[in-house]
Amino acid sequence: MKLLSFRYEGNQRFGPKVKKEEAVWDLAAIHEELGEGEPFPAHIIDGIAEGHEFVEGIRRLVERAETSGNPEAYKHGFDEIEWTAPIPRTPKNVICIGKNYADHVTEMGGDRPPEKLVVFTKSPTAIAADEEELPAHAGITESLDYEGELAIIIGKGGRNIQKALAYDHIFGYTIANDITARDVQAAHVQFFLGKSLDKSCPLGPYLVTKDEIPDPQNLSLVTKVNGEVRQNGNTKDMIFPIDELISQVSLYVTLEPGDVILTGTPSGVGKGMNPPSFIKAGDTVKVSIEGIGTLSNTFA
Amino acid sequence: MKLLSFRYEGNQRFGPKVKKEEAVWDLAAIHEELGEGEPFPAHIIDGIAEGHEFVEGIRRLVERAETSGNPEAYKHGFDEIEWTAPIPRTPKNVICIGKNYADHVTEMGGDRPPEKLVVFTKSPTAIAADEEELPAHAGITESLDYEGELAIIIGKGGRNIQKALAYDHIFGYTIANDITARDVQAAHVQFFLGKSLDKSCPLGPYLVTKDEIPDPQNLSLVTKVNGEVRQNGNTKDMIFPIDELISQVSLYVTLEPGDVILTGTPSGVGKGMNPPSFIKAGDTVKVSIEGIGTLSNTFA
Repeated sequence: MKLLSFRYEGNQRFGPKVKKEEAVWDLAAIHEELGEGEPFPAHIIDGIAEGHEFVEGIRRLVERAETSGNPEAYKHGFDEIEWTAPIPRTPKNVICIGKNYADHVTEMGGDRPPEKLVVFTKSPTAIAADEEELPAHAGITESLDYEGELAIIIGKGGRNIQKALAYDHIFGYTIANDITARDVQAAHVQFFLGKSLDKSCPLGPYLVTKDEIPDPQNLSLVTKVNGEVRQNGNTKDMIFPIDELISQVSLYVTLEPGDVILTGTPSGVGKGMNPPSFIKAGDTVKVSIEGIGTLSNTFA
Repeated sequence: MKLLSFRYEGNQRFGPKVKKEEAVWDLAAIHEELGEGEPFPAHIIDGIAEGHEFVEGIRRLVERAETSGNPEAYKHGFDEIEWTAPIPRTPKNVICIGKNYADHVTEMGGDRPPEKLVVFTKSPTAIAADEEELPAHAGITESLDYEGELAIIIGKGGRNIQKALAYDHIFGYTIANDITARDVQAAHVQFFLGKSLDKSCPLGPYLVTKDEIPDPQNLSLVTKVNGEVRQNGNTKDMIFPIDELISQVSLYVTLEPGDVILTGTPSGVGKGMNPPSFIKAGDTVKVSIEGIGTLSNTFA
């Protein structure tokens, strides 16, 4: 299932994409008229904490709408809604893994892969949507860079999660662009400031539920800037694979429903080019991941 | 005004300390019976976004309770409530300044103060209360350390805040112990994991409103472990003073009501001792700041 979060007439909503249509099911509207008093979460994070049962509940609501005699009443065309990130606001900062692809470590001037996870965070105020126009932050940075990444969305929370049980805690996946002010990142040593500029964390377009991605550890990832391929990687090349990431991070930090973990970026970032090539106003960056879709943003 | 957050009969509440009594005014109860339909925030963060008007609103409610003929009905003794951190859950990770006192930089092996702010974060899942028993995290770390710090609580949010207007965005102050797993911090290079263990961010006991602290840049700060003085500093020795911290951080990150900024620790941490002395089960760490009070926690 492809879930999207959106605003309709000013209200934050979520729902699954209508198959073969450029439209979304408005679950809140379906629930109001056809919910038969069953409980339904007001916020997507309350739902994903329930895991796969939440997906089954959504399927039941969509079936009722489809057989209601007037299914069109419960759909909104993509031209009627304002997209938001699939998780519009994470419960804590977005958790990010650095240096998780060997060829990216090399292009950034490192001489060997890290022995331990590198983990930093991005402020949830940085979250933006697919196709949202992003600021180039002139005056704050002269070296804004892209990083295409697979993003994990945590369903069931936990601490000290065993590696063998890590996938039980994943609700689904989306695409992230971990936009980074390289000069700020370098000057301040700890990465938080350079990683937390407004709208520097676009996520989307969809939250794809876990059942649709049988092998998240073998997905091609391509980033294009103005149509030119810059990153062409595969999630099989992660130094620390997904189950290890969840296990290691949760050894120290309690994970919660709706937490988002960015799994690192392959080579091909602007800073790694010769000469370096950073984001300029007018540039369009598209990150595509197999089975999930394409996250596209243009810089103002 | 000294505000505290607490649980009473399972409900999260907040209110000012009753003067000269070991008790708190239950604002929600006063508002329910004597509020005359005026709006009142359900959560402390909604209130502090209003700044000093929120303080005035609280004063009016307390006056009505005092003159109600039965003021005792609106008080709870400290033995009847469960204390929580003044901000029980921050809207984003707790923002922390590293290396902000020169003598602490030296004791940690640094040869000079940082030219730029060092900013990292602690997960909001790490927040704990005054007098709450804290885990020693045996099995995860062998070098748990304390760091007594002045904590700023942001009232009005903002981005790119001018230094001259920084204090307009402060709602008040509390005390923090930035508990750190030194081995995890060093092994993972970026500080987030080693700073985010459960209950590694006790805050309290009170949120002291800004009007009661005329010079936050001249407060003595003393940390004791089992009664022995370990840190004996003063906030006047910050390398980057409070107005500069707010201005610099907000240049990159949007600040929001309820955000907490830890301003760094003076010398005297366990790692800086010869030989280093880390926290053991049974230890009690007390951090006292002039005009705010004492934050006390014992490790299980």
